Amino acid sequence: MIKRIAPDVEVIDITHGIPPQHVLQGALVLANTLPYMPVGVHVAIVDPGVGGDRKPLALRGADGRVYIGPDNGLLLVAAERLGGVAEAVEIAERAYMLEPVSHTFHGRDIFSPAAAHLVTGVELGQLGPALDPGSLRRLEVPEPAIGEARIRATVLYVDRFGNVALNVTAEQLSRVGIDPGARVEVEVGFERYFAMAARTFADARTGDIVVYEDAYANIALAINRGSAAQMFSVQVGDELRLSAA
Amino acid sequence: MIKRIAPDVEVIDITHGIPPQHVLQGALVLANTLPYMPVGVHVAIVDPGVGGDRKPLALRGADGRVYIGPDNGLLLVAAERLGGVAEAVEIAERAYMLEPVSHTFHGRDIFSPAAAHLVTGVELGQLGPALDPGSLRRLEVPEPAIGEARIRATVLYVDRFGNVALNVTAEQLSRVGIDPGARVEVEVGFERYFAMAARTFADARTGDIVVYEDAYANIALAINRGSAAQMFSVQVGDELRLSAA
Amino acid sequence: MIKRIAPDVEVIDITHGIPPQHVLQGALVLANTLPYMPVGVHVAIVDPGVGGDRKPLALRGADGRVYIGPDNGLLLVAAERLGGVAEAVEIAERAYMLEPVSHTFHGRDIFSPAAAHLVTGVELGQLGPALDPGSLRRLEVPEPAIGEARIRATVLYVDRFGNVALNVTAEQLSRVGIDPGARVEVEVGFERYFAMAARTFADARTGDIVVYEDAYANIALAINRGSAAQMFSVQVGDELRLSAA
Repeated sequence: MIKRIAPDVEVIDITHGIPPQHVLQGALVLANTLPYMPVGVHVAIVDPGVGGDRKPLALRGADGRVYIGPDNGLLLVAAERLGGVAEAVEIAERAYMLEPVSHTFHGRDIFSPAAAHLVTGVELGQLGPALDPGSLRRLEVPEPAIGEARIRATVLYVDRFGNVALNVTAEQLSRVGIDPGARVEVEVGFERYFAMAARTFADARTGDIVVYEDAYANIALAINRGSAAQMFSVQVGDELRLSAA
Repeated sequence: MIKRIAPDVEVIDITHGIPPQHVLQGALVLANTLPYMPVGVHVAIVDPGVGGDRKPLALRGADGRVYIGPDNGLLLVAAERLGGVAEAVEIAERAYMLEPVSHTFHGRDIFSPAAAHLVTGVELGQLGPALDPGSLRRLEVPEPAIGEARIRATVLYVDRFGNVALNVTAEQLSRVGIDPGARVEVEVGFERYFAMAARTFADARTGDIVVYEDAYANIALAINRGSAAQMFSVQVGDELRLSAA
Repeated sequence: MIKRIAPDVEVIDITHGIPPQHVLQGALVLANTLPYMPVGVHVAIVDPGVGGDRKPLALRGADGRVYIGPDNGLLLVAAERLGGVAEAVEIAERAYMLEPVSHTFHGRDIFSPAAAHLVTGVELGQLGPALDPGSLRRLEVPEPAIGEARIRATVLYVDRFGNVALNVTAEQLSRVGIDPGARVEVEVGFERYFAMAARTFADARTGDIVVYEDAYANIALAINRGSAAQMFSVQVGDELRLSAA
């Protein structure tokens, strides 16, 4: 659809690998990835409410990036990390949609056409009425519970290696006494594991559990040359507890 | 291979996700997708007969699109929906192949080179001898059996959300009394489920079974925020029955 | 990252499908694929030692190709098949990296930036100090054991069809009396199967086991319209034995 409207635009696929309906995981991957991408029109779609009353959005960020997607919180984690939303509109102008608009595939019929039209010179405000950025739907990104000696953390995303990223920073981990080199107790449900805080996988032996800061500044768990998600049987949204051992 | 012969051509990947050997599913995805793609040279390969006596084809459609692929019916569903085949040739000219041609990878050795040569100005007729379009192999797309109060339908394709598309149109469904808002009985083998005919997922509650018209005008079954294919244990080619409940 | 540094460069994705940590499989896919790709800067990353002391490499091949990736043997199978390494450097110059360099994602922070800078005109030697090509780490590609009447072979890679490629050539197979048309006994552990040596799948009936030369000149096993990897329960590195039946 984009190429039909804007044949010369370059399309870069970031991922088609977000699990269905995982809006928060989509939002976090977008927020983690965009800082490394060229400024552009960014289309993101994880849209379980397609065809319902959630609005289709076009946002302009403070740094000139444009975000296109559903008003379900998917876009805002990225936009706010990158300076906030300067302008928001509801995509409502039928002239910039593929008619007839289907009830279930707005990626094809609304979002991609809107992105392509923007690239060809249509102004954001031509897509539809302005929205108050404060009125947009926000996702709750879970916060860790940091005790004296223990952190209760939530799984934010799992990558294709099975590495398990948590809603915890290195600074928070340090507050409970866990720094690179420390031994760590990991509790998952009633199971207990011992891990090593390390800077990278290569600091550990094959099969060791490693607690490390991932490439997006989240603390993560890995099995050196294995899958931590599989060993712990955890998925996005699950809780686990970390303490110095 | 395409870029070596035609470095400036733009290559758009539609999918590498057709299950091995599923020629009909490939044909339907192609037919569903091409109407939304720019006119171009379209290469499609699902080719269980590679290396046998099935012919490699190049077709020109009535609307100027060119289709490249094996003569096993894969290309014709799309070509016929988009106006029919105006010209057909067998790709036979060795000068436009990668020599030596392997017995198992004609995508690399025959189809991609042919497409690339066409883009650089080679005429369709230079690829090989003309074929009678009426002689090309056709797939049988299964037809639904429409009774007084019940439709026996076949699964045509399953998308990555587990939504199950049937060989049924909204008009056919209406003939047995099922319109948006109606309750629907779905029989799969000896199992019986109750569903709701709806315009979109958002009309249903989480976990509801929804019967809806998908974005390609096929009636489909979905579980709101779940996988219908998994719940019903169905795959392409399986039958199920729909009636008003 | 590449597009931020070199916006006009064209990026071709070969695959993101190498299983985690399978350096040898990555090396073989690279070596099989590059001969069909345009000459360019080739970035390959299967890097279980990321963040450790393995060096990041940039190599210039005898034919003008440039290879970027970790010094774990991944690049050398391809480079040596395509004429050998003419020049090797360690990527060490921080000016061509994304700072701060993470401990776990050198694809983003070191390898992609280096590739992009080379495309914009940076010389290989500017990336860091020269290395002796003879000092680079090599993978051991397993050799078959060829007896009087039997070959003991190792699985090199498995494709998405479940076809199982072995470290055996057609010429080696012929030495133990197996030529197209011959019946073949395949032993996997204590199981024994009967297969047919054929030129292509189409020479066999549905469900037959076929021994054939694949499109990269390796002998492979396939089930006509099925998955040989699944039937034999084999994966990369497993051994099996072939003899004339």
